[in-house]
Amino acid sequence: MLAHRLIERKRDGGRIEPGEWRALALAYAKGHVPDYQMAALLMACFLRGLDRGETAALTEAMLLSGDRMDLAHIGRARVDKHSTGGVGDKTSLILAPMVSAVGVAIPMMSGRSLGHTGGTLDKLESIPGFRTDLSLDAAKKQVEEIGCVMIGQTPEIAPADKKMYALRDATSTVESIPLIASSIMSKKLAEDLTGLVIDMKRGSGAFIPQLDRALELARMMIELGADHGCPVVTLVTAMDRPLGRACGNALEVEEAIAALKGEGPADLMEVTYALGAEMLVLAGVAEDLAAARRELEKSIASGRAAQQFQRIIEAQGGNPAVVDDPAVLPQAAELEIFTAPRAGFVARIEPRAIGRGIIEMGGGRTRVEDTADPGVGFVITARPGDWVEPGEPLATIFARDRAGIGSGRLALRTAITIADEAEPPLPLVSHRVTVDGVEELKP
Amino acid sequence: MLAHRLIERKRDGGRIEPGEWRALALAYAKGHVPDYQMAALLMACFLRGLDRGETAALTEAMLLSGDRMDLAHIGRARVDKHSTGGVGDKTSLILAPMVSAVGVAIPMMSGRSLGHTGGTLDKLESIPGFRTDLSLDAAKKQVEEIGCVMIGQTPEIAPADKKMYALRDATSTVESIPLIASSIMSKKLAEDLTGLVIDMKRGSGAFIPQLDRALELARMMIELGADHGCPVVTLVTAMDRPLGRACGNALEVEEAIAALKGEGPADLMEVTYALGAEMLVLAGVAEDLAAARRELEKSIASGRAAQQFQRIIEAQGGNPAVVDDPAVLPQAAELEIFTAPRAGFVARIEPRAIGRGIIEMGGGRTRVEDTADPGVGFVITARPGDWVEPGEPLATIFARDRAGIGSGRLALRTAITIADEAEPPLPLVSHRVTVDGVEELKP
Repeated sequence: MLAHRLIERKRDGGRIEPGEWRALALAYAKGHVPDYQMAALLMACFLRGLDRGETAALTEAMLLSGDRMDLAHIGRARVDKHSTGGVGDKTSLILAPMVSAVGVAIPMMSGRSLGHTGGTLDKLESIPGFRTDLSLDAAKKQVEEIGCVMIGQTPEIAPADKKMYALRDATSTVESIPLIASSIMSKKLAEDLTGLVIDMKRGSGAFIPQLDRALELARMMIELGADHGCPVVTLVTAMDRPLGRACGNALEVEEAIAALKGEGPADLMEVTYALGAEMLVLAGVAEDLAAARRELEKSIASGRAAQQFQRIIEAQGGNPAVVDDPAVLPQAAELEIFTAPRAGFVARIEPRAIGRGIIEMGGGRTRVEDTADPGVGFVITARPGDWVEPGEPLATIFARDRAGIGSGRLALRTAITIADEAEPPLPLVSHRVTVDGVEELKP
Repeated sequence: MLAHRLIERKRDGGRIEPGEWRALALAYAKGHVPDYQMAALLMACFLRGLDRGETAALTEAMLLSGDRMDLAHIGRARVDKHSTGGVGDKTSLILAPMVSAVGVAIPMMSGRSLGHTGGTLDKLESIPGFRTDLSLDAAKKQVEEIGCVMIGQTPEIAPADKKMYALRDATSTVESIPLIASSIMSKKLAEDLTGLVIDMKRGSGAFIPQLDRALELARMMIELGADHGCPVVTLVTAMDRPLGRACGNALEVEEAIAALKGEGPADLMEVTYALGAEMLVLAGVAEDLAAARRELEKSIASGRAAQQFQRIIEAQGGNPAVVDDPAVLPQAAELEIFTAPRAGFVARIEPRAIGRGIIEMGGGRTRVEDTADPGVGFVITARPGDWVEPGEPLATIFARDRAGIGSGRLALRTAITIADEAEPPLPLVSHRVTVDGVEELKP
């Protein structure tokens, strides 16, 4: 009867109280509330909204539906980074080893690819043997031992959120700011963090393309963090084109390893350093962002960051040789160079078309239960604003067969626009949002 | 993927096209669309609304998800009556035999009690042996043979509606005018009617208490009927107090039989004759409402109406002796007279409190799978506006035990208000709505 009453109240624009959210989340996690009632409630929440107090109560309710990692005893700052999802976004693969190499504990919990966007877990699993499904205890132990773990949401963490997230995906109730904020924060708070950095994507390839809505989501997550004594800093970054050059699971791991050795593309490094510096300052390891960035550059230059990635891979069952030899990764059977059809400026490289192309080529998943071919994808060397001549190489297509090459070619034709003029792309890192407000960053 | 796309579109205020409704209803009836997706869609429909064309398309889609009765060959008018649900409303039990006794075919398909309201099927099943779960073929045969059948929705009739209705009940998406209209009309149109009379209840005991919303629903059903060449006439009747005296399954059958013998209470007879006269005029059996009413009075006075009920009961496996001897019906073990606690006017007899009291006493169902005790209920002799002295009998409580008497007493205390002044109750039959518009009736 509880669910029935709450659906009716939310449907009519009413408020659900904290005790009711807690009872509901527990009952749903235990299977006492059927999916169809939760689906109706989620749609009512989507259309009627949740106020600040309800969003906090729902976050807390989902957090309390499971266990927490409990890491206070390690006596070090514990920081994570969360991205709202993009194409070519492999910053997590670089940040986790680079930042933990400087002495900050990183209990990183990531997601799978969904829609057109990639997922950190899928990328990691392209490393032969790498396991992301550690138990909560094993994950905790690894943080204690080497200062970093990279896992998926365990069954113990926010089980109500886990069920609810899958249901939202099936019922078109994903793009709600309070539902997104509470889902992310219930998981992140379960990591027992002392600080969190959020990479809020905006632009055509982001789940929330509009800046104002992205900022609203950022503010809400900052407040939810503050409720639990976890400071949150958000950077708004560009997702109007893929980040870096590589798009596709194994290709992105290869690019991340190159980045850890100081050979990452400039745009990827700029975003990664910006996020990493915030993590260090939040952790109290660096005094300001400039000092933090120097620390991170040193960790790369000294080889410590790459060694730390090797250590993480080894601890999680993966083949650590990958750091020295990318050929360890699954390779595509077919390659083709994609060239400019005409002279002009590269006006757009549309991330959604790239992401959908990878799925089309068998490298992504349309449903959670799909298996992906990790070797396929693109390396896009052209950048928005570049002048190109006809026949000039823009990208390489990596496919498992000739049909895949065909799909990839089609995707690149849709994604890349060559025109007589090119609008400037979005600034890579445009806004910094903290508990004190929004700051627009100088390019 | 179809459901996903339609949920998203309706969520954002868009329109679902006729072909999409048809595909969805078929897929849902076959179990290819899960309940949780349909629940999210129904909530989006509830909050975003359906326009006239969508409501028509949904009605048609649910109708086409199953079979139709196909009665055209019997060469007679086929009319049914539908009530939006009330307390003490036993007009169907009188109308079906009375109107079919005058030569109009009545393929009546009714529902079960739900919420505080009673259900014709539950009332009929209090007659020992009476079966309401006939097959579509058996029902058709009975209409051919004796001109009337009284059944529930068969599995063949509008299966998409059947599943959707149960889901709406569980997900607080019942009170939506387009969803109500399409649900009712998809079933009624499957009866292959040449006319339909709707008893639209209004007042505190109705599912849609407000007159303006009741009229909106009436207009929508009239239009849906017109789409399929089935003229619909709606009478708006009072549900600010129970109709007649008896409330409770077996007690209502007893009162209906009394009515068929010319001994029904005045308010019940006024509403029943008004509805019945519309049925006769729609069927073309009477020239106008006055002539129709005279026909119906003759059918009662001659004993033909009561005999026809006996015939229906016998055909459906019930004990026809009930028409001559009400003692055949299940009897309550305990009786108690409920008296006026003070002098004053009977200011209110609240139907919801009466209906809930019957459920409390074990005579109703709170879930579709509950079994009800048919013997319990009330006979309320007091009428709104009556002056009563302290200790004067207002009602009789029929219960299965002393605890039930206690529940009944409590319900009557809540339901019946004695006050120094009494507002006049709603007029019994206040509006007549046809394809030509709304007519306010003179009392």
